[in-house]
Amino acid sequence: MFEYEDKNWCEKMRIRLDFNNVMQDFIDGGFSQKNFDDLSEKITNAANQLDSKRANGQMDWRNLPYNQPVDEILDYAAQVQKNFESILVLGIGGSALGPIALQQAINHPYYNELPREKRKFPKFYVADNVDPERLVYLFDVIDLDKTLFIVISKSGSTSETMSQFMIIKDMMEKELGKENAKSHIVCITDSEKGNLIKIAKDENYKTFYIPAGVGGRFSQLSPVGLLPAAICGIDIKELLAGAAFMDEACKNNPQKNIAAMYATINYLAMQNGQNITVMMPYADSLKYISDWYTQLWAESLGKSVNNDGKIVNVGQTPVKALGVTDQHSQIQLYNEGPYDKIITFISVENYRETITIPKIFEDMPTVGFLGGATHNELIQVEHYTTERALAKLNRMNMTIILPHVNEFVIGQLFYMLEVATAFAGELLNINAFNQPGVEEAKNLTYGVFGKPGYENKRIELENVLKKNQNYFV
Amino acid sequence: MFEYEDKNWCEKMRIRLDFNNVMQDFIDGGFSQKNFDDLSEKITNAANQLDSKRANGQMDWRNLPYNQPVDEILDYAAQVQKNFESILVLGIGGSALGPIALQQAINHPYYNELPREKRKFPKFYVADNVDPERLVYLFDVIDLDKTLFIVISKSGSTSETMSQFMIIKDMMEKELGKENAKSHIVCITDSEKGNLIKIAKDENYKTFYIPAGVGGRFSQLSPVGLLPAAICGIDIKELLAGAAFMDEACKNNPQKNIAAMYATINYLAMQNGQNITVMMPYADSLKYISDWYTQLWAESLGKSVNNDGKIVNVGQTPVKALGVTDQHSQIQLYNEGPYDKIITFISVENYRETITIPKIFEDMPTVGFLGGATHNELIQVEHYTTERALAKLNRMNMTIILPHVNEFVIGQLFYMLEVATAFAGELLNINAFNQPGVEEAKNLTYGVFGKPGYENKRIELENVLKKNQNYFV
Repeated sequence: MFEYEDKNWCEKMRIRLDFNNVMQDFIDGGFSQKNFDDLSEKITNAANQLDSKRANGQMDWRNLPYNQPVDEILDYAAQVQKNFESILVLGIGGSALGPIALQQAINHPYYNELPREKRKFPKFYVADNVDPERLVYLFDVIDLDKTLFIVISKSGSTSETMSQFMIIKDMMEKELGKENAKSHIVCITDSEKGNLIKIAKDENYKTFYIPAGVGGRFSQLSPVGLLPAAICGIDIKELLAGAAFMDEACKNNPQKNIAAMYATINYLAMQNGQNITVMMPYADSLKYISDWYTQLWAESLGKSVNNDGKIVNVGQTPVKALGVTDQHSQIQLYNEGPYDKIITFISVENYRETITIPKIFEDMPTVGFLGGATHNELIQVEHYTTERALAKLNRMNMTIILPHVNEFVIGQLFYMLEVATAFAGELLNINAFNQPGVEEAKNLTYGVFGKPGYENKRIELENVLKKNQNYFV
Repeated sequence: MFEYEDKNWCEKMRIRLDFNNVMQDFIDGGFSQKNFDDLSEKITNAANQLDSKRANGQMDWRNLPYNQPVDEILDYAAQVQKNFESILVLGIGGSALGPIALQQAINHPYYNELPREKRKFPKFYVADNVDPERLVYLFDVIDLDKTLFIVISKSGSTSETMSQFMIIKDMMEKELGKENAKSHIVCITDSEKGNLIKIAKDENYKTFYIPAGVGGRFSQLSPVGLLPAAICGIDIKELLAGAAFMDEACKNNPQKNIAAMYATINYLAMQNGQNITVMMPYADSLKYISDWYTQLWAESLGKSVNNDGKIVNVGQTPVKALGVTDQHSQIQLYNEGPYDKIITFISVENYRETITIPKIFEDMPTVGFLGGATHNELIQVEHYTTERALAKLNRMNMTIILPHVNEFVIGQLFYMLEVATAFAGELLNINAFNQPGVEEAKNLTYGVFGKPGYENKRIELENVLKKNQNYFV
């Protein structure tokens, strides 16, 4: 039996939300039960909306914990582990942020630097930019002949990913020959639409699919997240079991379940002037969870128009921070600056290692007091005292508590934050699943590069450039 | 002659600020010349204040480009390059963020993964957290016997750094013997005050000094930034020459110099409701400049009380973003969300490498148009079209233009942003050089660990804990 099939074990791994420090019992200006009661109809409606959308097949990402081709992924991953020294994910946005977050959470923090016998699985790289330097320099550390390229684009028209793919395909065919190159490429894309599936079929590349109804930032539990993880030895069955466990929790009364409450508290905070939401895990392993969350929250909830067509320009700005590190960077501002933010800490109850501070310098009171303590205690105490200091200054904060960092817990965390984001979208009465605001820059880019149909965009830019040297120092 | 001794070369390397897109000529609701004129007395006063503080010896960080022990650092660095395989910086806040930013800007993006013959200099690691996992796992990739530990703490009472130092000192003395261990430790600290200088003298460690008047976040051009950089082959003379070049530029009329204008524009934006300032370089090499800047801007300007003792709770929240990557994460929000942010792009005119997209898939219009272009063009065009799309939606943005990424340019950038931060502090009439808001959490931490004199803090925490299980899901 796997651990995640044991109900008691799962219960011990349940993630929780401590929101004392947003409540008026703990801080001046905090929320009261009445604030939640006043919203109860809205909250119930939001929950019902999500349920009916799911029932109508409009929320395919909710079903990813149950319907993914896990065995096919594991079989393919086993082959990759045998045949390759490195994998390179070509993707951007959710296609990069999810795989990076999971890799950092579960695997060794210096994974790529470990010798193969200790690392066991292929090295893990992601190319999520079109910076010419980085791509050139990457080839100083990977060997084309021993690298698998995982090309991720649902539409197959993501300029950044597709141009990287074009460069690498060309390099590889020249270096390895056209037939050999094929076995170095796997595509994760829509099963029917777009360029990438067409190319994959023409070239006979191995392919995995992103279900049609799943958008990039909600795709982490599809092959987008699962395939790179499985190749690097991460237990994707446990990850999905954690997500399914959270799915059950999210069916509870929305005033009693963690995802809905996380959304509701942030919604109340937005109404209250907190236009900034900070995500601050106290664990290096969770640093990139904040990056993934930033996309999810920003792109889903930053919208100009609501579902009634009214201009609203809503959206909380997510800020990434890391405890304790950023106590020495951002906390001064959080404690003393404007009352414009709500802070979510992520705490870890049990780290995977323990390290003890020796009893030395006992004659120096400002450092000697540390002797005999563990870093585990120090990081947890610093989280707690930071939280308290904020609360004393009536700064809203809450904590997502992770019992451990493992696949089951991270699966819960991904799924919880996805549901919370969708829930917040309902509370805000906006569409959390589109991103119309990124189209204009794309169209202007097409204009510059002479894509047919975008000639007027080029002219528009040329007109601006004519007057563009006005304000310079 | 070094390149930076050639005035024409320096002029070609000058960084510039394009602020068209904050002005009403380019966006509705933008600033007018009148906005600057109305502030002119305040701007002049700010400039005069900074000048007189410098003249009175209250701005020692302004003199770092001229008075650092460069030859001693280079001599010591040469020894380290010969004798060690790795360096580990033990520091937090400015002591970590500055060295990381510089390393990433100048050196190979996969520096640590390169073989020694290609890398040439020791591997570079930073331990800027008390996460027990990371420190344990770090010893899987560094060898105590071949690592130099650079301990950075001005006061010698930074719990995180000192506890790491205690752990490593103890390990090393057990493994290498007390005498051998000494040659593996160098301290960067105050020359007179605090625990670390006392320990360094007692143990006869090699030491470099942070000048008394230089605070952590303004210390990048002291040995804090210079020593790790020099060991890793970065040209610190060129870095300091760039900073000195910027120092000259900052003596210009404050309505004509880049640092003062950057500060003034952000100040105007704050008055205008932009409580968020985004820093978004279009270069992977500059990603960690944003992290360094975040501390500088947040900790310097996030203050509850102004110089007249009035409660003001000011401070813009810096947000880190990376172009083009975060076009697929945060730009949707920037385009469509609240009008609460001003965005600073950093653009690069000449990357160090060029990469060309091959002409393939010409029958597919959504990708074929990319064929024949370079990634250099693509990243620059995407920056420009993103800037334009924001401007069309009347979103304030500006661009710091870097002709190249090299030590001279990065020296200018560090120094410019430091002066800008100090200048903004004057405009806000606050003390940009203290951080009183982080004291309370420290005191509470002392209470938990039983440091004498902090018993009441422990009692306070215990009382909170008693009522602490109220709001949980």
